[in-house]
Amino acid sequence: MATTVDTSKMTNPAFVLQAIKSVHIEDRPVPALRDPAHDVLVHVAQTGICGSDVHYWQRGRIGDFVLTSPIILGHESSGVVTSTIGSAVTHLKPGDRVAIEPGVPCRRCDYCRAGDYNFCADTVFAATPPWDGTLAKYYSVAADYCYKVPDHVDMEEAALVEPVAVAVQVCKTAGSLANKKVLVFGCGPIGVLCQAVAKAYGASAVYGVDISQSRLDFAREFAGSETILNPKVDKEGAEPVEKAEIAAGILKEKLGLGLGADVVLECTGAEPCIQAGVYAAKCGGTYVQTGMGKENVTFPITTACIRGLHIKGSIRYTAGCYPAAVDLVASGKVQVKKLVTNRFKFEESEKAFELVKAAKEGVFKVVIAGVEQPLLG
Amino acid sequence: MATTVDTSKMTNPAFVLQAIKSVHIEDRPVPALRDPAHDVLVHVAQTGICGSDVHYWQRGRIGDFVLTSPIILGHESSGVVTSTIGSAVTHLKPGDRVAIEPGVPCRRCDYCRAGDYNFCADTVFAATPPWDGTLAKYYSVAADYCYKVPDHVDMEEAALVEPVAVAVQVCKTAGSLANKKVLVFGCGPIGVLCQAVAKAYGASAVYGVDISQSRLDFAREFAGSETILNPKVDKEGAEPVEKAEIAAGILKEKLGLGLGADVVLECTGAEPCIQAGVYAAKCGGTYVQTGMGKENVTFPITTACIRGLHIKGSIRYTAGCYPAAVDLVASGKVQVKKLVTNRFKFEESEKAFELVKAAKEGVFKVVIAGVEQPLLG
Amino acid sequence: MATTVDTSKMTNPAFVLQAIKSVHIEDRPVPALRDPAHDVLVHVAQTGICGSDVHYWQRGRIGDFVLTSPIILGHESSGVVTSTIGSAVTHLKPGDRVAIEPGVPCRRCDYCRAGDYNFCADTVFAATPPWDGTLAKYYSVAADYCYKVPDHVDMEEAALVEPVAVAVQVCKTAGSLANKKVLVFGCGPIGVLCQAVAKAYGASAVYGVDISQSRLDFAREFAGSETILNPKVDKEGAEPVEKAEIAAGILKEKLGLGLGADVVLECTGAEPCIQAGVYAAKCGGTYVQTGMGKENVTFPITTACIRGLHIKGSIRYTAGCYPAAVDLVASGKVQVKKLVTNRFKFEESEKAFELVKAAKEGVFKVVIAGVEQPLLG
Amino acid sequence: MATTVDTSKMTNPAFVLQAIKSVHIEDRPVPALRDPAHDVLVHVAQTGICGSDVHYWQRGRIGDFVLTSPIILGHESSGVVTSTIGSAVTHLKPGDRVAIEPGVPCRRCDYCRAGDYNFCADTVFAATPPWDGTLAKYYSVAADYCYKVPDHVDMEEAALVEPVAVAVQVCKTAGSLANKKVLVFGCGPIGVLCQAVAKAYGASAVYGVDISQSRLDFAREFAGSETILNPKVDKEGAEPVEKAEIAAGILKEKLGLGLGADVVLECTGAEPCIQAGVYAAKCGGTYVQTGMGKENVTFPITTACIRGLHIKGSIRYTAGCYPAAVDLVASGKVQVKKLVTNRFKFEESEKAFELVKAAKEGVFKVVIAGVEQPLLG
Repeated sequence: MATTVDTSKMTNPAFVLQAIKSVHIEDRPVPALRDPAHDVLVHVAQTGICGSDVHYWQRGRIGDFVLTSPIILGHESSGVVTSTIGSAVTHLKPGDRVAIEPGVPCRRCDYCRAGDYNFCADTVFAATPPWDGTLAKYYSVAADYCYKVPDHVDMEEAALVEPVAVAVQVCKTAGSLANKKVLVFGCGPIGVLCQAVAKAYGASAVYGVDISQSRLDFAREFAGSETILNPKVDKEGAEPVEKAEIAAGILKEKLGLGLGADVVLECTGAEPCIQAGVYAAKCGGTYVQTGMGKENVTFPITTACIRGLHIKGSIRYTAGCYPAAVDLVASGKVQVKKLVTNRFKFEESEKAFELVKAAKEGVFKVVIAGVEQPLLG
Repeated sequence: MATTVDTSKMTNPAFVLQAIKSVHIEDRPVPALRDPAHDVLVHVAQTGICGSDVHYWQRGRIGDFVLTSPIILGHESSGVVTSTIGSAVTHLKPGDRVAIEPGVPCRRCDYCRAGDYNFCADTVFAATPPWDGTLAKYYSVAADYCYKVPDHVDMEEAALVEPVAVAVQVCKTAGSLANKKVLVFGCGPIGVLCQAVAKAYGASAVYGVDISQSRLDFAREFAGSETILNPKVDKEGAEPVEKAEIAAGILKEKLGLGLGADVVLECTGAEPCIQAGVYAAKCGGTYVQTGMGKENVTFPITTACIRGLHIKGSIRYTAGCYPAAVDLVASGKVQVKKLVTNRFKFEESEKAFELVKAAKEGVFKVVIAGVEQPLLG
Repeated sequence: MATTVDTSKMTNPAFVLQAIKSVHIEDRPVPALRDPAHDVLVHVAQTGICGSDVHYWQRGRIGDFVLTSPIILGHESSGVVTSTIGSAVTHLKPGDRVAIEPGVPCRRCDYCRAGDYNFCADTVFAATPPWDGTLAKYYSVAADYCYKVPDHVDMEEAALVEPVAVAVQVCKTAGSLANKKVLVFGCGPIGVLCQAVAKAYGASAVYGVDISQSRLDFAREFAGSETILNPKVDKEGAEPVEKAEIAAGILKEKLGLGLGADVVLECTGAEPCIQAGVYAAKCGGTYVQTGMGKENVTFPITTACIRGLHIKGSIRYTAGCYPAAVDLVASGKVQVKKLVTNRFKFEESEKAFELVKAAKEGVFKVVIAGVEQPLLG
Repeated sequence: MATTVDTSKMTNPAFVLQAIKSVHIEDRPVPALRDPAHDVLVHVAQTGICGSDVHYWQRGRIGDFVLTSPIILGHESSGVVTSTIGSAVTHLKPGDRVAIEPGVPCRRCDYCRAGDYNFCADTVFAATPPWDGTLAKYYSVAADYCYKVPDHVDMEEAALVEPVAVAVQVCKTAGSLANKKVLVFGCGPIGVLCQAVAKAYGASAVYGVDISQSRLDFAREFAGSETILNPKVDKEGAEPVEKAEIAAGILKEKLGLGLGADVVLECTGAEPCIQAGVYAAKCGGTYVQTGMGKENVTFPITTACIRGLHIKGSIRYTAGCYPAAVDLVASGKVQVKKLVTNRFKFEESEKAFELVKAAKEGVFKVVIAGVEQPLLG
């Protein structure tokens, strides 16, 4: 199937996942405002591709979210506010350039009312079945989930506010990082962003661990991290978890971590990293899980207990993450443009997804331009 | 070997673990004050037996602590201050009746200075190799680790302040329990104490789970808990962790827990309970591990991540736990006397240990009286 | 003016504040659902009178809220859900008996999204200008701000969930009260409720301070507090703040508070109590201000600084306060019925307000029944 | 009196405060180790002068600390470990270059055990009556209160770790500053250090307020702060507190703070700043008092209550502050050398004190070299 289609005659060209492994561009009705008072219609400008997009494309489900009817893909987007603006909206006007937070919660459940809206079961989340995503000309969304960006932040950077907000939530979950030694497993996009945010939040040292030297090199340049290859442990007859303990010991010694890291951010979801992360944390230290891989892993629960660790999961974002992420990007503390290795036109969306799927060395962050991109930059 | 010996001619009769599975009573020198300014010598009155005592007796090690030379056993004790009192001690005088906190930390490491003294690697902890325990006529300890008890609290109750302090630390680790729904796995001594303390701290509901109906009955009476047998799940071909998820679902439904428990306190260390505990917690909920069993378990890490759980280990006690535990006992909020099912004379110490080792239904907490018990009550 | 009017021919009789010191009962249109999807119409059953209601009546303003047009008074209410129920409401049905949280926030501002909805500037708060209150036959409110009460909780108790929720927020603001010594200034309704809630939340001791012996007696009976008359300090030439410091010293000594109270809850707003409260707190202790009196007071800021106090203001309620308050009432931990000293029919509303205004000894909480009270109890 | 004396024949020349306004250099015995096992003798290298030193000199007391017999002055010092080292000390050896934390607590009271050692009433604090300070050739101190500095940190920088540690404690008291807008009243040494630390800890914006333009200029250069002159409000008949409210409004508007600052750090102790600080904080915001001036001030308590502020006092330092401060200095994040405007020899100590007392524009931080300064840098 060729995804290069002529979108010039379409009203709302959209990149649709029809079924597992089947995507194409089709014309969709311009979405109505879900809440005519408080929503706005955004002309999408740039969209980053995330692993979860590819996952739905290839497997049709993540956890309880299962593709049962076609959805538009994409959820890391920026755009320009159109003239279709809810009657009660006061902080946005046509032409405003915004980063879009892709999940709008119900605002009424106990989680929403308590400020934990990342747990809201009724969230309308872009490109999570059954909800349409942002890879279309237009996207309709709550006005308070659109964040204006300063003039000097371009639309590509604004789209990448999304993964920065993920990293902000990870760091917020970890608690104050000021003068902490922070050990980050994984130097993919979320890993290096966590490293950069931890650095910006006053960590005294940030360490990046990965199995790819090129990713370590990038982490060092991008976030100023100290980096180290995850040690390979050969010990005959040893259980994997024992090897992870040995690996953690090597990491601690080589990095001069003494009793252990104050904070571990696990951004891989890989079993050996999870295990090593627990062993690498100091007593009373904090460990945040954000990477996702195997559902269940062999876990050193007794060590976690005896060392009094604080183990937390981080998921999505909560109030303040997007504004913080916009500020980190706008101030130059997190230079998201350096993440982008490949850029595609909207018509090439499938090609862009194929590239991400291939997971080649050197492909880091892939971005797709919008249809009739409304503003340069 | 007969443990019934004539201690009347001994200076400091002591119940000594000589080697694995080998204990006897022998005369030991009266211990000197480790710090002549700040320590006191206590005439031990009552001592509860804990699983860890039996563990050292039978296996000679727990984690990194290994028996390499004989030690006196026992660490849950009360006593009466003798006239051997450090020169700088002002808050104690001879005859004061005290509960003894069994671990005195170094006071100088980073953990101690930050108030996390339960992590101090240089703690002198009673009956943890190489340190002697309290099952002797006399025990020398830091004065600030002796807590006076009111007149109406007897020495048996004062000895049992120790497991209450463990439960206080578990609940402190869990954070505020006020108006929380608290699910406790395990109805042994620590489990029911955690239930009672959670109740005293304002939990709106406390649920006890166990596989023994008689323990559930006791939990209901002791702590006012709602109780439920841990459901047995038969599902052919299912992995144990999947069965645990189903069990958690049954618990949540039967207990009316809706989205899950606000707080889970895991007091068994049993793998199925750990797994069910994670599945039974609500999003953003807190799970505290205090029970210890297998070193490593199969753990639903992705669920913990997606649900944003706070998983914490609790170990020993920190500042304030002992005073709180004394208060809970003295106020009658936690009626520790109900825990005691069997009482022994000092000369019968080995018999007492044998009884605990046998782990019979109906044997809950076993207490050993001191030598020439100094005060009634 | 006679407030006893015939309401039997009115559609929606309402107790209206027309201007300062001018109230009467008039017929008002049955309120429409503000949000046709998510609101419900409640038939009001019982309403407690609060000092702020009387304040608006007598002075027409509190802070920035100024009476500029007539409003219906009343905000501490319970009621029965009518058949007018928003289309998207699932957890309520006609006949449900509910406690009504009187302030519904905008759900969209930064405070709301972060869970701090008590700070929302766009809250629709009953009987706060320009918003109508609950002293009418019908009240329209967001469904998620209606909390079902169990059958054994009657409508009078359900109305008094409101001041209990205020006390819950005060205690939540104070942080964990488990095993804390809590000193409460003021034994009026909010003061004694704070004492009762602190007790329920595991405070090891609660102390009530007031200048009225009868209120102290009530606090002792209602909340099990230790109580003490606020000492009168005569010292010639001393500044008031110096006298407050001396008074605090007397309180600490008489109550055996040693270095000071762990937590001070200031429920009077009286300058001498505020000052004494600061001096009575221990180093690192917590002080919560909830009473309101003079805008500005002479304040021992250097003492607050040197002692490292945590001073917090508590206002209204946040997520979870109402469910917690319903639970405290339903469980019998807080026996709100004991607060009620005087009961009036709806037609006697003005008389009820006059009684509260008179502030006589022996008048504690005054409750007004609804029109055609829909259910007994 | 001439303070220039020949110290070459003295064993331990010391700068002694004999009585109010009376200082001189005299020979003192080399101090013994207070704890022969855990203390060390340090050869003092550099000492910064702090306002409190001058205060004792001029007035003989601060709060409860009253000069009743001569004491050596000085408490902001660095030095070199001599060969007099306690028998149990393992982390220090002769020649180690260290920053000295000047207050060693008792390690045994409830505050110490809980990690709040800044509240310990039995702290031996340098130059706080009756304890001798560091302005001598030698100072004896607990080894764990000596912090090694890297080679590239010179002794002057190491001495100035002390005020950095004060700022670290202020920022720690404020909680996480990541992405917060932080408004700092005062651009003296502590004020600008708080600004620099807040910046290093990820504040999105730091604002410095002062009444001296040259101090604002320095703050901008030193900490990268936005700065603003504290507005002078002329409103006839207005109370000072009302003027402060107006000033706060001007600050908020000019700085674009919208609803207010997330965090206010009050480093002046001046009444108008305290008042403006309260008005300038947003609802739910944090205000930290560290400056000390008048004992009591007129305080907008009702505003603090309604806005739900968190007001905290910061005093001295707690565990981790000194290591954090060393790290901030060593990493170059806080460039303390820029603070130093005047340097004196030990023999000129009185002249140095006179200069600080004069409080001239342009004199910021004054440092006194040690006797026979042991190491350059």
